[in-house]
Amino acid sequence: MSAIVFLIQCKDQKGLVAGITSFFAQRQFNILHCQQYTDTEVGQYFMRIKLEDDGSYDHQQLEAEFSEFAASMALNWSVRYSERPYRVALLVTRASHCPYDLLLRELEGELKCDIPLIIGNHRDLEGMSRQFDKPFYHLPITAETKQAQEAEIKRLLAEFDIDLIVMARYMQILSEEFVTEFSGRIINIHHGFLPAFQGAKPYHQAYERGVKIIGATAHYATAELDEGPIIAQDIQHVQHDNSPQDLVMMGKDIERIVLARAVKAHIEHRIIINGRRTIVFSEGA
Amino acid sequence: MSAIVFLIQCKDQKGLVAGITSFFAQRQFNILHCQQYTDTEVGQYFMRIKLEDDGSYDHQQLEAEFSEFAASMALNWSVRYSERPYRVALLVTRASHCPYDLLLRELEGELKCDIPLIIGNHRDLEGMSRQFDKPFYHLPITAETKQAQEAEIKRLLAEFDIDLIVMARYMQILSEEFVTEFSGRIINIHHGFLPAFQGAKPYHQAYERGVKIIGATAHYATAELDEGPIIAQDIQHVQHDNSPQDLVMMGKDIERIVLARAVKAHIEHRIIINGRRTIVFSEGA
Amino acid sequence: MSAIVFLIQCKDQKGLVAGITSFFAQRQFNILHCQQYTDTEVGQYFMRIKLEDDGSYDHQQLEAEFSEFAASMALNWSVRYSERPYRVALLVTRASHCPYDLLLRELEGELKCDIPLIIGNHRDLEGMSRQFDKPFYHLPITAETKQAQEAEIKRLLAEFDIDLIVMARYMQILSEEFVTEFSGRIINIHHGFLPAFQGAKPYHQAYERGVKIIGATAHYATAELDEGPIIAQDIQHVQHDNSPQDLVMMGKDIERIVLARAVKAHIEHRIIINGRRTIVFSEGA
Amino acid sequence: MSAIVFLIQCKDQKGLVAGITSFFAQRQFNILHCQQYTDTEVGQYFMRIKLEDDGSYDHQQLEAEFSEFAASMALNWSVRYSERPYRVALLVTRASHCPYDLLLRELEGELKCDIPLIIGNHRDLEGMSRQFDKPFYHLPITAETKQAQEAEIKRLLAEFDIDLIVMARYMQILSEEFVTEFSGRIINIHHGFLPAFQGAKPYHQAYERGVKIIGATAHYATAELDEGPIIAQDIQHVQHDNSPQDLVMMGKDIERIVLARAVKAHIEHRIIINGRRTIVFSEGA
Repeated sequence: MSAIVFLIQCKDQKGLVAGITSFFAQRQFNILHCQQYTDTEVGQYFMRIKLEDDGSYDHQQLEAEFSEFAASMALNWSVRYSERPYRVALLVTRASHCPYDLLLRELEGELKCDIPLIIGNHRDLEGMSRQFDKPFYHLPITAETKQAQEAEIKRLLAEFDIDLIVMARYMQILSEEFVTEFSGRIINIHHGFLPAFQGAKPYHQAYERGVKIIGATAHYATAELDEGPIIAQDIQHVQHDNSPQDLVMMGKDIERIVLARAVKAHIEHRIIINGRRTIVFSEGA
Repeated sequence: MSAIVFLIQCKDQKGLVAGITSFFAQRQFNILHCQQYTDTEVGQYFMRIKLEDDGSYDHQQLEAEFSEFAASMALNWSVRYSERPYRVALLVTRASHCPYDLLLRELEGELKCDIPLIIGNHRDLEGMSRQFDKPFYHLPITAETKQAQEAEIKRLLAEFDIDLIVMARYMQILSEEFVTEFSGRIINIHHGFLPAFQGAKPYHQAYERGVKIIGATAHYATAELDEGPIIAQDIQHVQHDNSPQDLVMMGKDIERIVLARAVKAHIEHRIIINGRRTIVFSEGA
Repeated sequence: MSAIVFLIQCKDQKGLVAGITSFFAQRQFNILHCQQYTDTEVGQYFMRIKLEDDGSYDHQQLEAEFSEFAASMALNWSVRYSERPYRVALLVTRASHCPYDLLLRELEGELKCDIPLIIGNHRDLEGMSRQFDKPFYHLPITAETKQAQEAEIKRLLAEFDIDLIVMARYMQILSEEFVTEFSGRIINIHHGFLPAFQGAKPYHQAYERGVKIIGATAHYATAELDEGPIIAQDIQHVQHDNSPQDLVMMGKDIERIVLARAVKAHIEHRIIINGRRTIVFSEGA
Repeated sequence: MSAIVFLIQCKDQKGLVAGITSFFAQRQFNILHCQQYTDTEVGQYFMRIKLEDDGSYDHQQLEAEFSEFAASMALNWSVRYSERPYRVALLVTRASHCPYDLLLRELEGELKCDIPLIIGNHRDLEGMSRQFDKPFYHLPITAETKQAQEAEIKRLLAEFDIDLIVMARYMQILSEEFVTEFSGRIINIHHGFLPAFQGAKPYHQAYERGVKIIGATAHYATAELDEGPIIAQDIQHVQHDNSPQDLVMMGKDIERIVLARAVKAHIEHRIIINGRRTIVFSEGA
């Protein structure tokens, strides 16, 4: 079944649910799912509304009409159509577990997106890309070439019509300019339980501190490293007899699952960024 | 802030959200939360709507008007007002961990209900009741006295104006007649992961089977033992070196948490029974 | 670092730890890890002892001497050398998520074993096998050919010198004769929380029953379907708005992780079967 | 069954298990449980050994003999007898959930210790103490009286022969001198996932940062606030619609469980402090 998903954000006010749902009811849309959230601290209202798309209503007309309606109520909004899946690029380096996991989930139908592009700053995952018949671009990076490399990345993103960039353990810091241009469209996986253990070697930091739980965090990339809005986190209990190497190994499963969960939420158009926080609407039929 | 919560159930049809939310919008209600679910397999629609209650709209009038509206759309519904908390009776026997837990959560404000009545078929928890200044009624039970005992329970439930009965490890089987009369208003905690390990000594059954996880299940009591609609479940990992006695001990925390979660969902008017399944709307602001 | 691992089982008696560890101390072995468990209900003692293998002690001599020692104390035992990793065969059908997961974990070094053989009763996963350069044997099965097919499987297991058979969602029932011959060397993944939901379509059964948690179970295959000793289990919380199809999808991650955990425990020689129960010694340095 | 538990720590060397277990085997002790851990990074060995105590071996003689043996191998060690349960003092302020939880677990037999003393810097929990027939001492604290108050606490600890001090959400900082004197004998519960969110109002910090998981941490108190060796941690998933107040409420269950788990490990003599890390031997029969 095809579906249309609107994400809406506005100043909180009375009558919002009734007003918005009536807009769609008047056009005979079947509402499959409607979720909302009011952030009372900042007085903002957020809604996700999922409509059955039987093809009878023209998308352009719908957007034109909703645009007018939204203007009258000062709504910020975006819309996605399930018939046009997200196009996702992977930025990778040497570590293969996260990229492999995403490719498999695309293959298994767990992630309903297309991954038409893989970019690596090393050649290590060229073989992986070939296994899955994905174009692989090797764009090495040094202090001198960084700017040129990012320009080339941007060119490829445009060429492949990419909606979402996933840093699948890319381990490089993108420039502030790059991150700003693709704001809200870059997901990074940090192999630590943010805000603890920012920066390098978080599992070794965790070992040194003697924590009993390790974690991973998927977040939108922002100019400040490891400070972007968090999308998903998960953890694993560890014990005194787990070495730093064990933590690295055990962490892989958390990283895989957390990154996949974040990407899934994004491509199902379930996330609204609210300052340093994210609203992640729940999965549902 | 006072609130009004409606639970609504009806045949699925277009325009339900818009229709229902408009009813409240027209009466100037601020909708604090609105959640819905469509069971497409049986074609049923379910909604929970939480309104701010500033006292300006008379409750009786609201109910009269909504009653008329509901009839026109064939809605089943119920309403609760936060200013009138649920009144909960505990049925207990010897085990103290669940009853204590509920009493503490009432005291801590984690469960916004009143527990004005404790009934035990043994005297063991009379001291506990006294600690919390709760009336305790000792109603022993034998095969001969069962009917009279249940009659006395009913009399007390009426006297204390009870909304919800919690079998806090009561370990007695209520009669079919009793269970039917209080259908949807009796919560039981089973110390096993239903549907596995029904009946007696579930932890010992779990040990014998060599499971690696134990669990507990809170459900509405029905005439068929351990077959009622499940409200909440949780689990705990166990290891080969946990004895049956360890499982009993470790299980206590699961039982406490699962039962408290189920009672909390019920007294926040977040549950609709849908055949053998429950819809448990999520907590929220 | 190379290692030698002994698994030992015997009647409980005084002086076992001292006796066994002294045997190795006298031969100048460094004990890396020593774990034990006493099942007081059946009076059995179990030990796993991991030694550093610096190559100075001949393996054959060690086994000969330990054999004599073990006879004097009536110990049952087995030994594995880390320099000779387990050889694992995958039995598969159409579902790809579990086989893919195991192949990736071998590749990532998370599972220190060799997977030299994949057998499918359908051709669906031939491409997957090719991706990883693994020989794939297509052995279709019907009621008439079952016996011949199993004979051919056995021939391949022998040819490839297989230690462990993993039914990676194989969905076929092996004959009692086959299962008995490879007793303790076949791991199956059941996509349900055993002992609940045995047999076919466990996620649909779980949906019908309205459970709030789904699970998966890895166990040794025995003649009785889904009744073998459990090695690992895990679960996922679900909600009323998860359809049976959602449960199938969500279950994949649990199946992957539970199966990988069970295979890892087996190939690290950490499991002793104790009747219907398993002792799974914990991971460690 | 009575038991004797030794905790042993020394420089790693060959023959330790055999040597130590032989010491007890020669004296006809039945070893109920023997766990060990080698920290290869610092070359230290740790053991916990639990013996059946049938009363036939005099404790003083055992200690004298083991003392001599330990000296010969340069072992650090301590011993506890199950017949002499730990005596635990609670330091409390206004929050009741942690102290109540510990008192109930003592009552339920989940914590096999005695809690003969409760000290509060406010009177709020005097009623709770009375409910459980525990002496309550009100020792208010100001900048001026801090030293005198701590002196009075010490006097009470001595009078009541206290082994372990539990800061059950005490919210006061003990002086460096106090903490040093009772080093390794003070357990604190921090309502945040250390090392994230140190200091005051961790749940509010967590809300601001937009984390998807909250946690609590039980650790030994040291002179540096929230920097002591961690004993236990646990977490709870949260969502965007949980307010800071929700987090405070949800956190209570984590705090209860984490603190109880840490106290249980300590009173079962299962913890060795290893620099900033703790070795927490697993529970067992």
